[in-house]
Amino acid sequence: MQAEIITIGDEILIGQIVDTNSAFLGKELNKIGVSIYQITSIQDDKAHILKALKEAEENADIIIVTGGLGPTKDDITKHTICEYFDDTLVENKQVLAHVEDLFLKYIHTPISDINRQQALVPSKAMVLKNQFGTAPGMWLEKNGKVFVSLPGVPYEMKALISNEVIPKLRNQFKFPFIMHKTMLTYGLGESALAGRIEVWEDNLPHFIKLAYLPSLGRVRLRLSAKAADKAMVETEMERQVNLLLPQIEDVFVGFEEDGSIEAIIGRQLTEMGKTLSIAESCTGGRIAQAFTSNAGASKYFKGSIVSYATESKVNILEVTQSDIESYSVVSKEVAEAMAKNVRTLFNSDYAISTTGNAGPSKGDSDAEVGTVWIAIATKDEVYSEVFNFSNQREKVIMKATNKAFEMLQKEILKK
Amino acid sequence: MQAEIITIGDEILIGQIVDTNSAFLGKELNKIGVSIYQITSIQDDKAHILKALKEAEENADIIIVTGGLGPTKDDITKHTICEYFDDTLVENKQVLAHVEDLFLKYIHTPISDINRQQALVPSKAMVLKNQFGTAPGMWLEKNGKVFVSLPGVPYEMKALISNEVIPKLRNQFKFPFIMHKTMLTYGLGESALAGRIEVWEDNLPHFIKLAYLPSLGRVRLRLSAKAADKAMVETEMERQVNLLLPQIEDVFVGFEEDGSIEAIIGRQLTEMGKTLSIAESCTGGRIAQAFTSNAGASKYFKGSIVSYATESKVNILEVTQSDIESYSVVSKEVAEAMAKNVRTLFNSDYAISTTGNAGPSKGDSDAEVGTVWIAIATKDEVYSEVFNFSNQREKVIMKATNKAFEMLQKEILKK
Repeated sequence: MQAEIITIGDEILIGQIVDTNSAFLGKELNKIGVSIYQITSIQDDKAHILKALKEAEENADIIIVTGGLGPTKDDITKHTICEYFDDTLVENKQVLAHVEDLFLKYIHTPISDINRQQALVPSKAMVLKNQFGTAPGMWLEKNGKVFVSLPGVPYEMKALISNEVIPKLRNQFKFPFIMHKTMLTYGLGESALAGRIEVWEDNLPHFIKLAYLPSLGRVRLRLSAKAADKAMVETEMERQVNLLLPQIEDVFVGFEEDGSIEAIIGRQLTEMGKTLSIAESCTGGRIAQAFTSNAGASKYFKGSIVSYATESKVNILEVTQSDIESYSVVSKEVAEAMAKNVRTLFNSDYAISTTGNAGPSKGDSDAEVGTVWIAIATKDEVYSEVFNFSNQREKVIMKATNKAFEMLQKEILKK
Repeated sequence: MQAEIITIGDEILIGQIVDTNSAFLGKELNKIGVSIYQITSIQDDKAHILKALKEAEENADIIIVTGGLGPTKDDITKHTICEYFDDTLVENKQVLAHVEDLFLKYIHTPISDINRQQALVPSKAMVLKNQFGTAPGMWLEKNGKVFVSLPGVPYEMKALISNEVIPKLRNQFKFPFIMHKTMLTYGLGESALAGRIEVWEDNLPHFIKLAYLPSLGRVRLRLSAKAADKAMVETEMERQVNLLLPQIEDVFVGFEEDGSIEAIIGRQLTEMGKTLSIAESCTGGRIAQAFTSNAGASKYFKGSIVSYATESKVNILEVTQSDIESYSVVSKEVAEAMAKNVRTLFNSDYAISTTGNAGPSKGDSDAEVGTVWIAIATKDEVYSEVFNFSNQREKVIMKATNKAFEMLQKEILKK
């Protein structure tokens, strides 16, 4: 059973928005055993949409189309899908009532003619209710293949997939079993890792594939298995993971299926009943933001001080003026004082600090662009390391953030 | 002149990574006048890669392939491209020297056989030097069409595009003129906006297209023009923008081509010589992170306090215990005290604060999930507004962040 995802919109092709919908769709379909054959992003153009639908129908059993359903004139998807199915648009009373209802509740105005058009759907379509927006989802079938058209607004699309599309697919088809297990590793390059686990990799059974996913200081190792026999897949995956883990023990931090490293750390801290605070300079709030993106962060995360200006390191974090003058703001002494003092300020068990120069130009320090000190403070000790993370701002910030997670994770696992 | 982007990797299809490379490629190619016909994401599979290359060759003049060039066994792109061009792989001395050099400098080890394979390239390919990694870019030509293969690691790919591919394309082809102008608007829905500017939209000349790009509290209006005559396009775009702006004056905040709203605010503050500090609760560092993602933030951004735990609102931000008890942490009084006090702490001209409940469960407050107070403080005044941003955590955080930018921008423009 294979699916193709078609995303429609010039804004994707000219790079104005990043297509995050496809990643969500890929993940959700994969979970129920549907492989994605291809993701195709195309223009808001009738001929192109028709061509893409035809090709997708040849390659896949399930075709999910997102985007191009807004009320405005640049959206022609609905008319084109209607034409593809040799159908006509009819006004759907439930959709009309829902659109009117949304406008009364949130916009406090009656609907316009433009909004009314949202209630037009192909007569052959089954309507999927969009609880968060005015454009309905549509489910159509042709020659045993399923076509689903969804709005491109991410949270509307996501709710439609989870509440309507996935349950209907599971109801209608029988899927093979797919399983992924992804190991997060930190601190070893892709080829060094590959060299180390080569023998194990060569002996993987044919239905298990390995992929290396490197990015900024970490490599994810993904095992993917697919077969009809669920119990066999689970047993063999567990066996292979158990063979692998001892070989990567020193760089392994957790399974991605358990969430990102910050989510894993968050859960570990919560379970231990321990708390965290942060003092960020060059990472500018990125570390705090990563932790607080996960629900439940308030259980362990006390807070953060983003001390961007040097004076705030003195006034708020109580780093001494003499340390700054003697060692500069990008130094072991300042990083450690930041971690130590922020831990005291927030009264947390652990603290992380970062101070460095993300570039592109030198700031209040003579440190080279890319130099970052990261410190960890606990009740018992404070220590730090220095890194040079290249000379690209985005890369420096992300690498420093990843390295801070890695150091904190190692500290937590000591206990 | 049209291009097709092919991204290779199962990790994209199963949704493990979001394909940000395509957006970058779309933007950069568009700037020089190349339209993107299609973006196609496919599996790391020989037959599929060959099929995609063939179809792309039929539809486009320039084919950019990213991904699948790593040193490990899951990457088969290079061999398949070689087969497509009926070519053989040969060891390239320059690439080999570069790989050896990178290993000596950064990994401090001699290269392994796996790394040595990075130096193999099709004999017909022109090698594009990858300064940040071991996998070289490759430029091949066939029947007047250009094929470029690039590594999938974003910063390696970006450098290759900017330093090698774009200059070579400009050198080899003559492109039409493409121009985009994108207006950022805040606070009005897509259909209300469409209704308001309908007459103007109906009178746009045929070579200018309008697109609505709505997302979480803001709508971007994008005008795209394409023609051979550069001066004519520029004149007509300016005329149309000048006709439009008076109609959207109350919701317009800037042009996206000038950067994101936070980049625009940053530039405005820098020009005015004014500074900013932030106290974030429910947004958890997201606002600080958005400002500090832009180079030059240290010119205006003093810092931020992410006061996630209620006690830190008292201890660090000096919100009074009695205000918290009387009004709860999610209240006008607490939001305004946070903004006022963080401004004093960091000694900045402006301050923003957020306090709310991003969900999924209620925290230290009885406020409904989605309720957020946002306050602005200046030397002269402090004021706030309350919002209800739905019940999805990610949406609440992003909407609150966007609304904070909007309120701050309005405050700055008062001067």
